[in-house]
Amino acid sequence: MRLAVLEHEGAALAAVELADGSFTTIADREGRPIRDVAELLKQQDWPALAREAMKTGQRLPAGTALLAPLRAPESVICVGVNYRAHIAEMGDTVPLWPTLFSKLPRALTGPGAVVELPAAAPDNVDYEGELAIVIGTGGRDLEGQEAWDAIAGFTLANDVSVRDVQFRTGQWFAGKTWEAMTPIGPVIVTPDELLDLDSRELRVHVNGQSRQLATIGDQVFTVTTLVSYISSIVSLRPGDLILTGTPGGVGVAMDPQKFLRDGDEVKVAMDGIGVLRNTFHTSGRPVELEDDRQTTVVAGVR
Amino acid sequence: MRLAVLEHEGAALAAVELADGSFTTIADREGRPIRDVAELLKQQDWPALAREAMKTGQRLPAGTALLAPLRAPESVICVGVNYRAHIAEMGDTVPLWPTLFSKLPRALTGPGAVVELPAAAPDNVDYEGELAIVIGTGGRDLEGQEAWDAIAGFTLANDVSVRDVQFRTGQWFAGKTWEAMTPIGPVIVTPDELLDLDSRELRVHVNGQSRQLATIGDQVFTVTTLVSYISSIVSLRPGDLILTGTPGGVGVAMDPQKFLRDGDEVKVAMDGIGVLRNTFHTSGRPVELEDDRQTTVVAGVR
Repeated sequence: MRLAVLEHEGAALAAVELADGSFTTIADREGRPIRDVAELLKQQDWPALAREAMKTGQRLPAGTALLAPLRAPESVICVGVNYRAHIAEMGDTVPLWPTLFSKLPRALTGPGAVVELPAAAPDNVDYEGELAIVIGTGGRDLEGQEAWDAIAGFTLANDVSVRDVQFRTGQWFAGKTWEAMTPIGPVIVTPDELLDLDSRELRVHVNGQSRQLATIGDQVFTVTTLVSYISSIVSLRPGDLILTGTPGGVGVAMDPQKFLRDGDEVKVAMDGIGVLRNTFHTSGRPVELEDDRQTTVVAGVR
Repeated sequence: MRLAVLEHEGAALAAVELADGSFTTIADREGRPIRDVAELLKQQDWPALAREAMKTGQRLPAGTALLAPLRAPESVICVGVNYRAHIAEMGDTVPLWPTLFSKLPRALTGPGAVVELPAAAPDNVDYEGELAIVIGTGGRDLEGQEAWDAIAGFTLANDVSVRDVQFRTGQWFAGKTWEAMTPIGPVIVTPDELLDLDSRELRVHVNGQSRQLATIGDQVFTVTTLVSYISSIVSLRPGDLILTGTPGGVGVAMDPQKFLRDGDEVKVAMDGIGVLRNTFHTSGRPVELEDDRQTTVVAGVR
């Protein structure tokens, strides 16, 4: 199944994608609309609610804009230094332990959103395309199959980083948690559709130019290992989001370095999930949206 | 005013302290009980609700146990390397920028709570007594007086750290966000009662022995500067918690190092806020509570 949040008549609605690419809304057992996949996942019978929605939900018009599929998760945990190629380009050695940090949930934004380059640090913003885990059942001290079973689905993320702020101190949080600068989406895909995850390619393009390309199998710590490790420290809960790290090819590691500029378009893509597309924009300048932006977002999901 | 959350008949109730040390419950405009100070602070007229509660709220019996005054804040932001004496003992230099990291809100626990030493790392747990800021109005890009005015109050925190996990990688998050290992409380005190904050002493005792002692004026970055800096990165919201860093005297910096052991009691104290007292306990061993634990927590607040 492919879960999303769409904006319809000014409201956010959790929805499930049908075979023809359209979306139907998901309601709870009392028939009330669910507004966030993070909220849906708190319902123990969420797969049944989503399947029911595929049969009887309200079909949303073609071209309805997608929002971040998780609008208010309780936590966003990030992994650094997790692809062998990225480790090499940053001059690091393969680590014994996952590097964990976090973002505030208010750092998230949606597919298609225009991301503002902060006025205080406009020349130092970098992309990091990532596969992200969305927790379903959650729990503590999850091991092996339990850890896999705790996963509700996968989505894509752009772990946008304000590099000079990230490296002002030894702790990366300040450069990673900027308001509404971390796009996620376009949809959350359940694990049964991504059983061959390790052989899937994660791709990032900036203005159509290929920048990042890796198979998930290049990760040092697998998604199952990450869920298991994090749950040894703290309980995981429905809707928690885990960004699993970025492959090689980030702008800060290029020679010369290439940071994002006003008008740049970044696409993070994986077959089976879709394309997370965002444009970057200098803060304070009026945004000129392309006429077909919202249509493009929906049509470009797969 | 002094705000708290108490456990009464199995439920959490936000409350305000009266001059005699007893607490009365706070209700919203519809008369429904408020269960978390984080929830209270989302009401724009919260000072009026709290003042009303001092006159007409339900008085809770003496000896009612205190819980964490913020049970589910949206974010917990932490500051490292912020007291000149602690910077010296850790061998660091005075920083140009605040060092920021975060914890998941589920890392919090309350005053009087027994904190479990994790089975995976029982011999490496350290205390860090801290002054903590609770955000009231919040906002973005707050400067000077605006930043001070955004503060709803102050409380105490013990930024308990699992040192070997904290230093496994360059990012401290994993060693700082352990489940229910960060006590906060006992109460949140509004800024009007702490105008001489810089001259106040923060004190930490382990089993009655003095370990940390500093005046808030020894902070490199003042509370106003921290609120301003964080709000330049991300919006602050009602109920957000900011731990402002720890003074010198942590166990990891002693020679020989002294970590917390089964049965240890840590008290973090500041005149005008009170005493945050917790005992530490080896995971998996039954807890033998002192008979007077709950009474002690309430009686020991000031």
